[in-house]
Amino acid sequence: MNSLLNLLHEDDTICALSTPNGSGAIAVIRLSGTKAFSISKKIFAPRKASVDLELAPSHAVYFGCIMSGEEIVDEVLLSIFRAPNSYTAEDIVEISCHGSVYIQQQILQLLLTNGARLAKPGEYTKRAFMNGKMDLSQAEAVADLIAANSSSAHHLAIQQMRGGFSTKIKELRTRLLNFASLIELELDFSEEDVEFADRTQLFSLLDTLETETSRLVESFRVGNVLKNGIPVAIVGKTNVGKSTLLNALLNEERAIVSEIPGTTRDTIEDTLVLNGKMFRFIDTAGLRESDDIIENYGIERTLQKLDQAAIVLYVFDLNEITIEELNETLADLATQFNLEEKKVILIGNKTDELVEIPHHFVDLVEHETIFISAKRKENINLIIDSLLKTVENTDNIPETIVTNLRHFEALSLALEDIKRIKEAFADKVPSDLIATDIKRALYHLGSISGEVTSDEILNNIFGNFCIGK
Amino acid sequence: MNSLLNLLHEDDTICALSTPNGSGAIAVIRLSGTKAFSISKKIFAPRKASVDLELAPSHAVYFGCIMSGEEIVDEVLLSIFRAPNSYTAEDIVEISCHGSVYIQQQILQLLLTNGARLAKPGEYTKRAFMNGKMDLSQAEAVADLIAANSSSAHHLAIQQMRGGFSTKIKELRTRLLNFASLIELELDFSEEDVEFADRTQLFSLLDTLETETSRLVESFRVGNVLKNGIPVAIVGKTNVGKSTLLNALLNEERAIVSEIPGTTRDTIEDTLVLNGKMFRFIDTAGLRESDDIIENYGIERTLQKLDQAAIVLYVFDLNEITIEELNETLADLATQFNLEEKKVILIGNKTDELVEIPHHFVDLVEHETIFISAKRKENINLIIDSLLKTVENTDNIPETIVTNLRHFEALSLALEDIKRIKEAFADKVPSDLIATDIKRALYHLGSISGEVTSDEILNNIFGNFCIGK
Repeated sequence: MNSLLNLLHEDDTICALSTPNGSGAIAVIRLSGTKAFSISKKIFAPRKASVDLELAPSHAVYFGCIMSGEEIVDEVLLSIFRAPNSYTAEDIVEISCHGSVYIQQQILQLLLTNGARLAKPGEYTKRAFMNGKMDLSQAEAVADLIAANSSSAHHLAIQQMRGGFSTKIKELRTRLLNFASLIELELDFSEEDVEFADRTQLFSLLDTLETETSRLVESFRVGNVLKNGIPVAIVGKTNVGKSTLLNALLNEERAIVSEIPGTTRDTIEDTLVLNGKMFRFIDTAGLRESDDIIENYGIERTLQKLDQAAIVLYVFDLNEITIEELNETLADLATQFNLEEKKVILIGNKTDELVEIPHHFVDLVEHETIFISAKRKENINLIIDSLLKTVENTDNIPETIVTNLRHFEALSLALEDIKRIKEAFADKVPSDLIATDIKRALYHLGSISGEVTSDEILNNIFGNFCIGK
Repeated sequence: MNSLLNLLHEDDTICALSTPNGSGAIAVIRLSGTKAFSISKKIFAPRKASVDLELAPSHAVYFGCIMSGEEIVDEVLLSIFRAPNSYTAEDIVEISCHGSVYIQQQILQLLLTNGARLAKPGEYTKRAFMNGKMDLSQAEAVADLIAANSSSAHHLAIQQMRGGFSTKIKELRTRLLNFASLIELELDFSEEDVEFADRTQLFSLLDTLETETSRLVESFRVGNVLKNGIPVAIVGKTNVGKSTLLNALLNEERAIVSEIPGTTRDTIEDTLVLNGKMFRFIDTAGLRESDDIIENYGIERTLQKLDQAAIVLYVFDLNEITIEELNETLADLATQFNLEEKKVILIGNKTDELVEIPHHFVDLVEHETIFISAKRKENINLIIDSLLKTVENTDNIPETIVTNLRHFEALSLALEDIKRIKEAFADKVPSDLIATDIKRALYHLGSISGEVTSDEILNNIFGNFCIGK
């Protein structure tokens, strides 16, 4: 299939700024395609006049000037990568220039004038896939890697990019093909009513396939949490200090992050990365709030969101609630949600308005309780410790994890196919009828690695990349 | 002097993110110093196990993984530059990694753990200067180059970075040294009242020195305009549409800039780059405005600012002013400012509120007049054409231009010294008394290239750089 897509593959040379937008000490512009060397040669004057880019060895760096006619645009370092030993498996030139926006624009403009075109989002990685440098799930992991902002998400993306996940899928496919070939033998001799394969062995093969596929399908929930953060809901009545608490938590993180100068974090709204774990706070703001906490959750969307939460921070105002009211509310919450599957932490807020914490609140043993002043940022660290402790307990992560919705959907479809095959096989349905389901399962598994794919799927996938990758 | 400074030079290995902050396809982290290779070796696993970074040739690129213990942090390209063939003249390693902020932080953290320290702003370029790779004025040009956002500013910075300006200063110093050595001969034999040098020749040498130094000093005004933009004042009464006009002008530029996708411009408030020329609009907003335009300019600061303007856009409301009032106001303006040195363009605004432009306004021949609707963005292009035409006429730019305030001040001091030498020489003041002034002039010229300098000056200069350069 790759070779077919290669026929459709435009044979032009693409260029793009690959470093982040804006100005900095240096910037890198990347050029990939058959004309990468010849285009660069037209605008690059190497310091050593004897250097010929078209003859230069791969993985070499040259110092020189980018020229616009007689005018020097910049002094640059130019790196040469020869096909197939490059990211895209094509000829690549990387121009490392001074990081002014003006220079970046000038060089891109020169490359365009000399026959390159601007790369579309993800086009370098798409070419890497097209040219067999990586399979589709590996290519998808590149985007995940760039987006990863926690050690868990980063770890998953690296593993997937390096082919850990692909190996697993290939294994499943091989098992299925193995099953198919055994079945096929039967098919050939079906008139003679011969059974070549040991049916017990075939059953066990199908069992393994089902177990492993279903394990992958199930891993998506964990994968999603690792990639997008552990969902935490901050709930409670109006004016108990939910927003103040969220801000205090987020500030805590920013203080930690800024310890390494020279880098800034792209702040993602309402996520908190602690010890490499990402927590995602579920936004219940903007929804109608009433005094009745249960009525408050009446809205379907809030219900669903809260249902996703792995951790619930229930905030109450120490000055405004009796222990009876609190217990009542918690009992009500428990009838609505499966709190057993969630960790509930009670947050008694506004200690700043009290002389001392009323004794009865200290005795709340059913749920962990933390007393804070969100306003004064007191004891916020206790909440953080508790969040981290909760996550440690759920740290038994399977080795291969599905993090991508597209993979999850393909695996779910394959699982259905496998279940149908197993049923039909148990019912002794004729082999040729089973064959259709086998083909379908092979197709779904193959779509993950891109062994079977369509242009539409590819455009969908790579269209979400950033430009320059 | 460089060698003395070298003794003070800290011998540690520095690291920094050199590409712009934020996430992108790739990012580059740079490491410079004697331990650059040994530190990199500790955290880099090359794909070809046989590669040894400490023995690797200069200007070579290797593919491999950055490792944190057993954990893969990223797949990277690592480029090797051996002293003295690098930017800093030290051993340099450039790590080109995936551009996630998380990865950037992890790699920097690893480098710190393994014995590097974070670079201070401009420290790479400071080392390049310390190690004799460039003189001080060239190093200063690097910061100008990165900041340049117009073709004129860029052109000046490139020229200065490549040593064009340094050559000129060196020439002046050589002439002065030549003069000094001729004078010194006389000094040695002063008792004998001998004149070795031809006094006419000496006079002409001093003349040339004075003319050239003074030409450089004068070039600063032009240099400043090229670097910071041609100052344009938009003046007029309240509510004639000054802000609307400014916004219309700035939007025009943004539309042009966005033609190259994949790059964004750092928007600098109130500057407009057209055909590579930068225009800087003088901010008269926030100052008290009254109906009386002259009273309006009563404030000292506005007066000074307007005095700097090379171009004055005088905006009036076509519906609210008679030709007599306009002429009166212009006459008043002329008594306050030297309008002969400025280009004045009259802008009749709010054509949208008129059926046709009153005939008498069309006949305003003393100044160029443009009729626009700032609100509807009509005829804004005519103003742009006019701005560009004005600049074309002043395009006779001297070859060597001073753009840096520090250089301007040093040259001004040197010029004073030279004038004093010339006077003393004409007055036949004994040579040994002239010697002090010669030494002083040599010192001031030498401070530009950094042949004589102090740590304080260096810290001042490089402290204004960005980190990573």
